[in-house]
Amino acid sequence: MVVVMRERATEVQVDAVIARLIELGMDVHRSSGATRTVLGVVGAHKVEKELIELLDGVHEVLRITEPYKRASRTFHPEDSVVMVGDVRIGGDEVIVMAGPCSAETEEQCQASAAAVKRAGAKVLRGGAFKPRSSPYSFQGHGEKGLQMLRHAADAHNLKLISEVMDISQIGLIDKYCDIFQVGARNMQNYTLIRELGHARKPVLLKRGISATIEEWLLSAEYILAGGNNDVILCERGIRTFETATRNTFDISAIPVIKKLSHLPIVADPSHGAGRRDMVAQLARAAVAAGADGLIIEVHNDPDHALSDGAQSMFPDQFERLMAELRIIAPAIGRSICLESSARRGWAR
Amino acid sequence: MVVVMRERATEVQVDAVIARLIELGMDVHRSSGATRTVLGVVGAHKVEKELIELLDGVHEVLRITEPYKRASRTFHPEDSVVMVGDVRIGGDEVIVMAGPCSAETEEQCQASAAAVKRAGAKVLRGGAFKPRSSPYSFQGHGEKGLQMLRHAADAHNLKLISEVMDISQIGLIDKYCDIFQVGARNMQNYTLIRELGHARKPVLLKRGISATIEEWLLSAEYILAGGNNDVILCERGIRTFETATRNTFDISAIPVIKKLSHLPIVADPSHGAGRRDMVAQLARAAVAAGADGLIIEVHNDPDHALSDGAQSMFPDQFERLMAELRIIAPAIGRSICLESSARRGWAR
Amino acid sequence: MVVVMRERATEVQVDAVIARLIELGMDVHRSSGATRTVLGVVGAHKVEKELIELLDGVHEVLRITEPYKRASRTFHPEDSVVMVGDVRIGGDEVIVMAGPCSAETEEQCQASAAAVKRAGAKVLRGGAFKPRSSPYSFQGHGEKGLQMLRHAADAHNLKLISEVMDISQIGLIDKYCDIFQVGARNMQNYTLIRELGHARKPVLLKRGISATIEEWLLSAEYILAGGNNDVILCERGIRTFETATRNTFDISAIPVIKKLSHLPIVADPSHGAGRRDMVAQLARAAVAAGADGLIIEVHNDPDHALSDGAQSMFPDQFERLMAELRIIAPAIGRSICLESSARRGWAR
Amino acid sequence: MVVVMRERATEVQVDAVIARLIELGMDVHRSSGATRTVLGVVGAHKVEKELIELLDGVHEVLRITEPYKRASRTFHPEDSVVMVGDVRIGGDEVIVMAGPCSAETEEQCQASAAAVKRAGAKVLRGGAFKPRSSPYSFQGHGEKGLQMLRHAADAHNLKLISEVMDISQIGLIDKYCDIFQVGARNMQNYTLIRELGHARKPVLLKRGISATIEEWLLSAEYILAGGNNDVILCERGIRTFETATRNTFDISAIPVIKKLSHLPIVADPSHGAGRRDMVAQLARAAVAAGADGLIIEVHNDPDHALSDGAQSMFPDQFERLMAELRIIAPAIGRSICLESSARRGWAR
Repeated sequence: MVVVMRERATEVQVDAVIARLIELGMDVHRSSGATRTVLGVVGAHKVEKELIELLDGVHEVLRITEPYKRASRTFHPEDSVVMVGDVRIGGDEVIVMAGPCSAETEEQCQASAAAVKRAGAKVLRGGAFKPRSSPYSFQGHGEKGLQMLRHAADAHNLKLISEVMDISQIGLIDKYCDIFQVGARNMQNYTLIRELGHARKPVLLKRGISATIEEWLLSAEYILAGGNNDVILCERGIRTFETATRNTFDISAIPVIKKLSHLPIVADPSHGAGRRDMVAQLARAAVAAGADGLIIEVHNDPDHALSDGAQSMFPDQFERLMAELRIIAPAIGRSICLESSARRGWAR
Repeated sequence: MVVVMRERATEVQVDAVIARLIELGMDVHRSSGATRTVLGVVGAHKVEKELIELLDGVHEVLRITEPYKRASRTFHPEDSVVMVGDVRIGGDEVIVMAGPCSAETEEQCQASAAAVKRAGAKVLRGGAFKPRSSPYSFQGHGEKGLQMLRHAADAHNLKLISEVMDISQIGLIDKYCDIFQVGARNMQNYTLIRELGHARKPVLLKRGISATIEEWLLSAEYILAGGNNDVILCERGIRTFETATRNTFDISAIPVIKKLSHLPIVADPSHGAGRRDMVAQLARAAVAAGADGLIIEVHNDPDHALSDGAQSMFPDQFERLMAELRIIAPAIGRSICLESSARRGWAR
Repeated sequence: MVVVMRERATEVQVDAVIARLIELGMDVHRSSGATRTVLGVVGAHKVEKELIELLDGVHEVLRITEPYKRASRTFHPEDSVVMVGDVRIGGDEVIVMAGPCSAETEEQCQASAAAVKRAGAKVLRGGAFKPRSSPYSFQGHGEKGLQMLRHAADAHNLKLISEVMDISQIGLIDKYCDIFQVGARNMQNYTLIRELGHARKPVLLKRGISATIEEWLLSAEYILAGGNNDVILCERGIRTFETATRNTFDISAIPVIKKLSHLPIVADPSHGAGRRDMVAQLARAAVAAGADGLIIEVHNDPDHALSDGAQSMFPDQFERLMAELRIIAPAIGRSICLESSARRGWAR
Repeated sequence: MVVVMRERATEVQVDAVIARLIELGMDVHRSSGATRTVLGVVGAHKVEKELIELLDGVHEVLRITEPYKRASRTFHPEDSVVMVGDVRIGGDEVIVMAGPCSAETEEQCQASAAAVKRAGAKVLRGGAFKPRSSPYSFQGHGEKGLQMLRHAADAHNLKLISEVMDISQIGLIDKYCDIFQVGARNMQNYTLIRELGHARKPVLLKRGISATIEEWLLSAEYILAGGNNDVILCERGIRTFETATRNTFDISAIPVIKKLSHLPIVADPSHGAGRRDMVAQLARAAVAAGADGLIIEVHNDPDHALSDGAQSMFPDQFERLMAELRIIAPAIGRSICLESSARRGWAR
């Protein structure tokens, strides 16, 4: 067994780990380099890896991974808060982003924005470019879609997030939106994410469906390395053998990210579930597990949506969910859109 | 079963497939559209999907799932409630089972039982047989361990659940425990689960780490088919490519099971997380997602536990978790061990 | 699409589902058996499976696969042969492409080309753009690298294949190479593959590490739909729970593709294995399973390669492998570069 | 990076690894314990893990796994050969075991045995106990089935292998068979495998569908630890996200096992493929990759088999496959059943 101490581990911590290992009957060979201490551990029996990993000052046991630095909590112990105007992602308040899969008409954007605002969302979501696996499906309205979404967001005092799929679209998204969304398929599109490292707006980075958490953080590192510190991670499900759901929502990713990184993490229960009647359960679970926010598909008329209708919630379902979340959040010292109803009352 | 013929399948090929299906004792309903022919196939017994796929002109064979009947919500629309004495699993109250991985000493059992009872658990969990992947690890105390656990459960007015691994252990577990626990590795041990179908105590059936939800329900069907209606399902994580956690806790399994089956489902966040500092997050998520209960490893002194120490909670961590769960449960119309403190106050 | 109603679905529910499908523009064929009703659904466009599954009384919706047409063997029963000058990929001869991971120097390119030509390769492989998961690794020589590779290919009468990662690189790759290579990460980069549909050179399309075979063929369909008929598929391993190898080489993909599609399929045992000492075994296996070709990393000095050194073969290992393949290929009526040595002897 | 040298690594090897690391610009901290040397490696840039793993004397890099000893090649560098009478499994000859999924009638056993013997098989395979996922399927003939198989094996001078599923069946299988087969679901049934450690006949241990190679070797260790040295490993496919095949046959497992262990490994292409028309491709691939043998389902009349008909080969398909294998095996210095036809001719 090889125990790797943190780079900032104190002498007291190193001694405690060694003492614990000796107590467990192990022989320890200490090797202290310029930057950190590594312990080679030998013994007649097996010691649970996780038992040592839980000790203070231990970075990890056996595998030395973590090629990321800026995304790592080791070098940035406090939680990062990403500011989108006056909306704080990563703070005490759990931020909900909601809206239709794609912008279809001005009316649909306005109606959807009104509905999600009423329920307490702070950010409007919606897509303008929809290149999908079949070459013949609806491909989005492009700039016209972005305009509709911006109008709707402004009319309801919401921030706006939309997906960017190619470096050629960066200028356009930047012109209309407050947050760049990078989809699961582009998590390792280095041309794109490197360019977003130079953007001056936050980036929401979805996890690829077959990406490990380590690879995901390394993609975040690419953006951070370019000078853009405002990265928001987003879990949306991974591909596994189970076919009862479209993807397997990896709820554990939330506490794992909280441990490894200082970046905020939000959850996308809509893509995680793939169907409307399971979105609320996953959304509640994500908040209970510690997510800093949610991004949810809500459509004013999902049965006639041009894309993702099955996983879009009805406005009243979304409102009920928000009410449930307001009960759950305080269990872990968080709140959900506290000011929202107050502000609504005041505005009227 | 539905047989989809190729777009260019000939009439001769269609006829040959129908003839073969009839020879196998099936009823066939033919439906010929503009581009292809589809055959609906129904019969009293199962035909291998691949046997038909090999026939000329067949594009693919689609299986209609749900070979289970007794476990299905279709034929039993109301939620089942499993009674363990006066403890109701599957009702409004979320039931928490907690205790050490394995029975080590009388003192440890008593201390652990006292701790979990104080926090609101209704059932004591603990293992007596521990055959593990390494032949040299602690293998459990057997009957002596069961006695210790029973003493501890009785002393604190708790029900007792313990794992049964082999038909030879059924009598012993039955003598001391209130619920049989079937571990993930035995989910498809048909010799064992068929026998438990004849037992007169509830069975908690853990999902295998590579079992689909359909296979899991089919194993439940085995037990139900034997006459034992008291099956409790337990999600504990599946194997995926992600290595940041020991398993990937499949939170979606909870709403999926609720949709497909009437059986109660509980979650095992300890095995799902594999490490103590992520158990609370998964436990909260499971309750928020609609789980009927939890089974959690709690040890009075986890750092010196003989097994699973890394994933066992400290008593005070567990108590904090229970307080959080009491806030979350009402969000979905559930409660957590409401009577517990009352009864404790009354008993004293 | 096939809609399977629940066993107890009411007539009203069945009618409602049919009405909804017709509203969505589909043709419906109803087939009512003794226990349940099955609806065969055909239409010009795709309807989300989940949208129908959410309707009352629906048990499940089964998708008929094969949304691809041009890639399907159904409509093109004979094997396609892709011509690269006089090199025929998909014919009786198993074509081997080999060379270094990336172009480093003129000498290295020349030495590697000489080595692979001597052993019987017909195509030189090599990369010029290497954006990798770590932002600080060697990123490739760009156009200068392509020039080196072209010189080396020409000097040894080899065709040239190199990876294209972005539409901005298409012109450059087209200028120097004979085949465009699309990497696993770009298999679903629709902007790129749609553009390659208009290219006039063959495209080798690697399978994404988490792509199903159906998704892979659908990506091929994108290219074919653009008018480029020369698509070569390439299996290189998928992501699974097994960590003993970097990826799990899916040997079954070879016979599955041969059954479903007329397109040639080659194997990349280098990325499949991830380490030099397992490349030969996978290469032999792929040929024995029916692959039309191989693409292998060979470096004149792998221990000092700037990238992928561990999985690059030594020239003498590669030569030994080619000798083994010449024995294996005839077992399935194929040959390996029979003319190569003959032509070399004759030319001199 | 942490480099773990082999326990028997020489001083020369250790020095060479250190020299290589320094050449790569790394700082190395050597820690030599009583049994082995561990190198802590620090440097400014990343060195490919596999590059070091390929060096002589290196056991592995980073992860210290290998809880198995007896199964490890480290402590037993030469290949083990398992003797079944005069049949040598693990030697130069590739041994083929073939026969029906289950024993149905005397005639079927005799006809199947005659067919596989004629083609060159050395061992008859067949099941007598068939507890399957559905409680209503054909469950096997038990002892009567074993008798039929034994008669057929004896009549054709074949050895016999049959599956044991429970310790209660060990005596019966022992009475009739030459090799115990442990199925994928029982790979971690420790009660069973521990007992087989005391048996005096070889055990063929199938890999579980979700078992890592390390777990598989650990299960082999259980049997070896009991004193039974005759363990044969058998790869039969793992569970992944791909659904085009029932399982994903892990061809890489063959070279990985050859590297890690001295035990013979055979392949089961029938379960790996799940359908007859892909068995030959996987069988050829397995032999080309270095498998020591094959176990294949062959039925004299597969269309009317009571179980696994779709994956059972016809006798003539099997005969053609054997002819192909005889061409492939010499490519890697192996033979297939050379003496078989000779001996048959001679015996008559």
